[in-house]
Amino acid sequence: VLTVKDLKQITVIGLGLLGGSVTLTAKSRLNGLKVAGYSHRDSTRQKAREKALADRVFDDIGESVAESELVILATPIFTFKDIFEKIAGSLKAGTIVTDVGSTKVLPEKWAKQSLPENVTYIGSHPIAGSEQRGLEYARDDLFENALCIVTADREHQQQSKLLEKFWSKLGCNVYELSPAEHDRVFANVSHLPHIIAAALINANTVSDLKWAGKGFIDTSRIASGPANIWSDILSANRENAIEGIKKTEKQLELLKNALEEDDKDKLEELLNKARSKRNTIIEDTIKNKGIVQ
Amino acid sequence: VLTVKDLKQITVIGLGLLGGSVTLTAKSRLNGLKVAGYSHRDSTRQKAREKALADRVFDDIGESVAESELVILATPIFTFKDIFEKIAGSLKAGTIVTDVGSTKVLPEKWAKQSLPENVTYIGSHPIAGSEQRGLEYARDDLFENALCIVTADREHQQQSKLLEKFWSKLGCNVYELSPAEHDRVFANVSHLPHIIAAALINANTVSDLKWAGKGFIDTSRIASGPANIWSDILSANRENAIEGIKKTEKQLELLKNALEEDDKDKLEELLNKARSKRNTIIEDTIKNKGIVQ
Repeated sequence: VLTVKDLKQITVIGLGLLGGSVTLTAKSRLNGLKVAGYSHRDSTRQKAREKALADRVFDDIGESVAESELVILATPIFTFKDIFEKIAGSLKAGTIVTDVGSTKVLPEKWAKQSLPENVTYIGSHPIAGSEQRGLEYARDDLFENALCIVTADREHQQQSKLLEKFWSKLGCNVYELSPAEHDRVFANVSHLPHIIAAALINANTVSDLKWAGKGFIDTSRIASGPANIWSDILSANRENAIEGIKKTEKQLELLKNALEEDDKDKLEELLNKARSKRNTIIEDTIKNKGIVQ
Repeated sequence: VLTVKDLKQITVIGLGLLGGSVTLTAKSRLNGLKVAGYSHRDSTRQKAREKALADRVFDDIGESVAESELVILATPIFTFKDIFEKIAGSLKAGTIVTDVGSTKVLPEKWAKQSLPENVTYIGSHPIAGSEQRGLEYARDDLFENALCIVTADREHQQQSKLLEKFWSKLGCNVYELSPAEHDRVFANVSHLPHIIAAALINANTVSDLKWAGKGFIDTSRIASGPANIWSDILSANRENAIEGIKKTEKQLELLKNALEEDDKDKLEELLNKARSKRNTIIEDTIKNKGIVQ
């Protein structure tokens, strides 16, 4: 298999919001491709069949991957190692294995440990639909203009290009980062805001929060995401998350010192630094990439 | 003067977004009331006259308040002391003086120091329009459903009720808090999110921020507010802001410890606490009060 057009069958393991959206979008946008699906839950398999989420939904994980040239894990990160082990014996030589996890170092480590040498693992991180859950929300436009990071690999350039093309056919804007760089960057711009938002809420009492307005609501929005998924993500990216907390603590110290010393100029300087950074860079980002997260 | 209907003239000092919106709204909603305005800037007075923001725009601050039964300061907090001193000799006996500042302890302290005993100071904090600036943005519906805190005073119940009625005629949902309670609560739900947002941005490099998505954008939104106004607000509420930072640092420590000890259950518990607090309380707040901030 050299290009997306040569793909005959793909398998998506895990049929929640992301997995279900991959199958639906692949079915509608990639003509002639057979889309297989698997879920470890009987009830999910039933629903997936009723909704015709895939061309075929398998009861057996090994059978589900046996005929596919591309296998996509769309389950929680900490299930990957187990799944790699379960499918290892059923994969065809040359198959590309990827995942949609929010961290990329651990999945790659587990893939190297557990997948056979004649298949290629390359990580993916399509950044879409973080607040809803379940195949009920799956849709064929979830990835439209979504950012997707692919941890492209110089030793497997052909497979990397195929995978990138696959995500771009699904509607994504695809960028390459190494697993380590991905995890460091997304600790800072995605995982850290989640930690900060949780700390802000937990620092407040229920009675004070009755006075919360739009500022607080927006600042804390992402803390409404599912706690189990986020504890997975943060645990899978511990060192970078810890590093991010330490950097934020340093910045909080600077602001606290300015207040303690009643140094209004310093305070304004720190606030202004944040303001101008946000206004220039982030609004550029919104304009240029249409990123959803 | 016993009720809003008995008011013959009010004066708004400072004709920016808030001040200009007070004059416009008072003109359109309070029949027969004369609305006077003052700005220390010649160019602002000119623009205010061109836009007919008030019935009369005065060049002299003393003259602007001399005939009014209600005087509203809508200038930066740290100008209040000076303004109180400037208008003290021109105020009529029985006049109510208020302000629209985002903190309430310092304005009250300055009022007690500088205003004559035959006038009554009661603080106001209408929470509206924090991100735009200047009379160009003034409008007569800015206060519609906005929260307004009045630091009502038991010794001046009649004047407190009149002031509350005034804000409610302008469209506000009015609540009473003491100055100390106001400053403590708003340090937590408004000033602290601003500090946190600034720390989050300043902890990140420009190149990492290129990858920022909607989560980061929302979490950091309020840091785009004007730095000089926010350094004023934070400086005017230093002790409470410092206390808020300390509480947040404690919560960050708990999250950092859970990560350092790789205690996923603890991590999920902390995230879940934040999630359920936000989902129940804050969504109630949005529904019940339609707060804008």
